[in-house]
Amino acid sequence: MDILLQCKPDRRERWQAALQAAIPDCAVRVWPDVGDPAGIELIVTSSRLPIDLSSLPNLRFIATTGAGVEHLIGSVDGIPPEVPIVRVVDPKLTSSMAEYVLTAVLRYHREFHLFEAAQKVGKWLTPVRCDPEARAIGIMGLGALGQASARLLTTLGFRVLGWSRRLKDIDGIECHHGADGLRAMLAKTEILVCLLPLTAETEGILDAAAFALLPTGATLINVGRGKHIVETDLLAALDAGPLAHATLDVFTEEPLPHEHAFWAHPNITVTPHIASMTVPESAVEGIAHALRLARRGEPLPLTVDRSLGY
Amino acid sequence: MDILLQCKPDRRERWQAALQAAIPDCAVRVWPDVGDPAGIELIVTSSRLPIDLSSLPNLRFIATTGAGVEHLIGSVDGIPPEVPIVRVVDPKLTSSMAEYVLTAVLRYHREFHLFEAAQKVGKWLTPVRCDPEARAIGIMGLGALGQASARLLTTLGFRVLGWSRRLKDIDGIECHHGADGLRAMLAKTEILVCLLPLTAETEGILDAAAFALLPTGATLINVGRGKHIVETDLLAALDAGPLAHATLDVFTEEPLPHEHAFWAHPNITVTPHIASMTVPESAVEGIAHALRLARRGEPLPLTVDRSLGY
Repeated sequence: MDILLQCKPDRRERWQAALQAAIPDCAVRVWPDVGDPAGIELIVTSSRLPIDLSSLPNLRFIATTGAGVEHLIGSVDGIPPEVPIVRVVDPKLTSSMAEYVLTAVLRYHREFHLFEAAQKVGKWLTPVRCDPEARAIGIMGLGALGQASARLLTTLGFRVLGWSRRLKDIDGIECHHGADGLRAMLAKTEILVCLLPLTAETEGILDAAAFALLPTGATLINVGRGKHIVETDLLAALDAGPLAHATLDVFTEEPLPHEHAFWAHPNITVTPHIASMTVPESAVEGIAHALRLARRGEPLPLTVDRSLGY
Repeated sequence: MDILLQCKPDRRERWQAALQAAIPDCAVRVWPDVGDPAGIELIVTSSRLPIDLSSLPNLRFIATTGAGVEHLIGSVDGIPPEVPIVRVVDPKLTSSMAEYVLTAVLRYHREFHLFEAAQKVGKWLTPVRCDPEARAIGIMGLGALGQASARLLTTLGFRVLGWSRRLKDIDGIECHHGADGLRAMLAKTEILVCLLPLTAETEGILDAAAFALLPTGATLINVGRGKHIVETDLLAALDAGPLAHATLDVFTEEPLPHEHAFWAHPNITVTPHIASMTVPESAVEGIAHALRLARRGEPLPLTVDRSLGY
């Protein structure tokens, strides 16, 4: 049987070799070289392929190459609901994300953003000490990435709050949920981290109303999706308060267009979607595991729930 | 009996209250109000006091308010060798230092210094992934602060090398010592952290010869003392290589003079001596402990060795 692979050209060789090593009884075909449609047992892809999936009689499921799935399940051109989509949960993607979040949180906690601004005008600031226990970090999204980030932050001693759609109970995290819970968490949050999936419910969730709830001087780290943010509301909250600074790794259009206002804003740090990246060599383990289960007719782990959008 | 306290005016009240609470059987006098010279049992100070110590017949020892002691033991105006100096080892100073080192290391590890430079010209960089296990951090100085920083970095998965005057054996750290050991460590170090005490041997240790041993693209974090660095050599190593960037928290003159070249250098981050600060409320425990030992005639912990300079 065959695996049909689609990914960015610069990542293709690594994905191909990693899949071949993890699933040696399949041949890896690279899109658009489908070959015999009856031979395709598995699709591994980063985007919706222009192919009639009903023409692949032996397709078991589609595995994603990244954490987000919103581009695979759109209502118009998305993958039909009867085809299972298995999300990748790559341990190296997870640890890299938690590391990025810690980097950005520490930069705000230790006020490097203020020192960088002060350095431009040659100003020696007076130190203000804040123990990590007194610093409230609010994490929106408590999936694999949000929980790993929260755990790492608690290891460093931070006070961590978390918000999810449904209530979760996570040791050491002050968990909130629902619309009221979001308002309650935002009001206490000094450093806000967005790690939500992009769904109809979360698109534009970071808007003027949300920002207005944050205490003055709060900072934002967005490692979810660009569309979580209402961009004009973010710029207004940075210019008029309460937001002091934002670190953005994801954007509605990537690469961020050269003329975009975020590039030149003095209180925005742009990073080029580098918070985390799937490592094919570690990600293929989960895909191979799901394929073994599918062949035995057992339930698949980590499948996307279309009604929730993730 | 009395404690004679000298510290910066803005810290005086906290030190006074903390000492009073930890050592309730002494009165705390604030310099220059010495009162009865025979009443002074202990001096707590951040600098050499212009007082004849032989006129204080009951002085047991001098306790410092900070980690560095080089300004207390100068050959001309230093404290005489027969008066013991007890260094403060404040757990909050230690954890704050390790946290600062981690912040600065992560900023380099995750290449925020490159993204900040790229943002100025609107450039979207291509991500380069590096696991912490593959990132070599070299720490000069393995005292309380160096060891705490090394431990925290190993917790995050970094490859940590350390250098000290005499060989140390620390679990999980690749330890080097002596002149040959320094050269060996520098040749392997991507991110160099200076946490040495300032002594005759370490003044100017970060010079052209040291920088030349580092691999191209290496970065420097100085949280020791300004005088560890030969400033013209640092600027040359930043401009012509191999150094890519430096984060400096300590300077020969503080506040850093407005006209100093460090302020405007595009590859230097200046922070205003904020890496760590003694917290009087936690530091007084060590002072009270030393006083109890001194009163019982037992050996004092953490005394400065004048021949070594720390």
